[in-house]
Amino acid sequence: MYRLTIKLSKMGSFHIGGRVINNPVDSIREVSFAKNGVPVYLNEKGTYQAEQMYIQYFIPEEVQGKYPIVFIHGGSMSGVIYETTPDGREGWLNYFLENNWIVYNSDSVERGRSGWSPYSPYLSEKPIVLPKRDPYERYRIGKGTNSYSHNIADRKFYKNSQFPVESYDQFVKQLVPRWVNTDEIIINGYIELIKSIGPCVIIAHSQGGAFSLNIAEEIPDLIKALVLIEPSMGGNMNNAERLVDIPIYAVYGDYIKQDDRWKEIYSKTNLYYEKLSEYGIDLEVQELPEIGIEGNSHMLMIDKNNMEIATLIQNWLIKKNMYKKNKTLSGGLL
Amino acid sequence: MYRLTIKLSKMGSFHIGGRVINNPVDSIREVSFAKNGVPVYLNEKGTYQAEQMYIQYFIPEEVQGKYPIVFIHGGSMSGVIYETTPDGREGWLNYFLENNWIVYNSDSVERGRSGWSPYSPYLSEKPIVLPKRDPYERYRIGKGTNSYSHNIADRKFYKNSQFPVESYDQFVKQLVPRWVNTDEIIINGYIELIKSIGPCVIIAHSQGGAFSLNIAEEIPDLIKALVLIEPSMGGNMNNAERLVDIPIYAVYGDYIKQDDRWKEIYSKTNLYYEKLSEYGIDLEVQELPEIGIEGNSHMLMIDKNNMEIATLIQNWLIKKNMYKKNKTLSGGLL
Repeated sequence: MYRLTIKLSKMGSFHIGGRVINNPVDSIREVSFAKNGVPVYLNEKGTYQAEQMYIQYFIPEEVQGKYPIVFIHGGSMSGVIYETTPDGREGWLNYFLENNWIVYNSDSVERGRSGWSPYSPYLSEKPIVLPKRDPYERYRIGKGTNSYSHNIADRKFYKNSQFPVESYDQFVKQLVPRWVNTDEIIINGYIELIKSIGPCVIIAHSQGGAFSLNIAEEIPDLIKALVLIEPSMGGNMNNAERLVDIPIYAVYGDYIKQDDRWKEIYSKTNLYYEKLSEYGIDLEVQELPEIGIEGNSHMLMIDKNNMEIATLIQNWLIKKNMYKKNKTLSGGLL
Repeated sequence: MYRLTIKLSKMGSFHIGGRVINNPVDSIREVSFAKNGVPVYLNEKGTYQAEQMYIQYFIPEEVQGKYPIVFIHGGSMSGVIYETTPDGREGWLNYFLENNWIVYNSDSVERGRSGWSPYSPYLSEKPIVLPKRDPYERYRIGKGTNSYSHNIADRKFYKNSQFPVESYDQFVKQLVPRWVNTDEIIINGYIELIKSIGPCVIIAHSQGGAFSLNIAEEIPDLIKALVLIEPSMGGNMNNAERLVDIPIYAVYGDYIKQDDRWKEIYSKTNLYYEKLSEYGIDLEVQELPEIGIEGNSHMLMIDKNNMEIATLIQNWLIKKNMYKKNKTLSGGLL
């Protein structure tokens, strides 16, 4: 059994970035904040905070990671994805804390605890919320289109799936609304965060993987290593050279060739990887099935073998000289 | 200096409650999740998760609190309010963890990391987002109406204010949108949480204070003590007798008599307290200025003397036999 002990010298949270937006329209809205409560007359005219980002941080008592890790989640998710798996196992946050890394876990701008303001021009469209079937069929949890059913027993999934399929309904509870024109404000939020905390390692998933490449293009000196978990796309081809000093580790799960959309994502991203290689960038692309790790969905951090993947990542970070080995490594199931 | 050490045997999060809602309208929305990304055709017809609640929990290595603490935040806020103060001091979460309480920190249904679904009938109205001036003038941070100004130097506040006024703009960043017809689904979320974790102590603020009374009316056997931080109103008069076995500690800051709205809230809530007293309920109402603690705003958990207030609360909990005193108490500034 995996037995956790986390010793922290500091733990807390803060919001960073964003801007203040002025709503010049005078309109009084009468609001009772509680049933039968004393009513409040809210004048909606005024200035509003918008586009800020939430970060929770943890500093272990003894620090061994040479740089803090910044976790960036994927689309429709929040930092919750790194905390605990839907079936109640430890998440990557705990793994890296137990191994004495400083960790910053974030909710991207407009997601989760970052809050969102209807006065932001980026948020005027209807947000996207995913129907229950969508992640099942799109994250390679189920076997593609029409694999989802409302009835658990009728759902079709890969026999050797590493996703905790029996906890899929629990997984769906952690999804949050998101908008689609917010790349820039999200990327800016992370840039502001990293400028304030200094050099770091990024571990980023899916949409966050693509963002992390854009972030690295802007502030390459502050990104000491980049771990991409099934990024939804590559970075900007024209800026590839800017990443010349950043070691990159890209990790992919199983069934990509069986899934038309993922096959296309992967092949497009590979064109970007080729561009990186032209500049001699230290890039390692790991398709997990090639080293005998089979059955992984798009959700590597919550798959059943998530600790095995975390250990792979940490071993790569150690190899890249990101870790002070001043005591025996604990944690990890390998 | 306050020096933190938190030793955890477990830390994680989960979502609880909610329901699945069916949207029968067939409509295809083409969405590109990333700029220049591979487009996805989202059929909005389908079933959606809605009205679930997010909880982050922490279990210290050595547990001294006889029951876990459930933190419930106020309106327009999330669990973030208990984590860290806007000027970067430790929050109550850290205080109670360091003193070896198990803590469940929550985001109410439809707030923060709980996510929200536009398909929930409770969320069809426009949410409320607070203009920057509103909490300044309504939470007794500034001196009432028109005390707020966009220019920090022009803001009017009480000379002895305990609120970290220089960090007000930072405080505003943590506010989240909220709806006003969601009392019932929020209360249900907490009832489901507490039924699943068992007997607990609730520490609840403002809107959450009122909710906690409604929660206690439904599951009185599971609430071992109730700490109300400036509740926005009392519970249901007709159900007051149900709380007969629950010790209650209600704590109020300063300037209440100087603020028309707060004076009204306080006097209305006092009618409820009188009702509790008729049943001989163990209720202690603490107006902080009466014991020489002056200058507190509505935001006791982030005011400059927040650790002093936390210590008052813990001392009350100890008096109510909620704590195993098997070692010297650490933490607290008193």
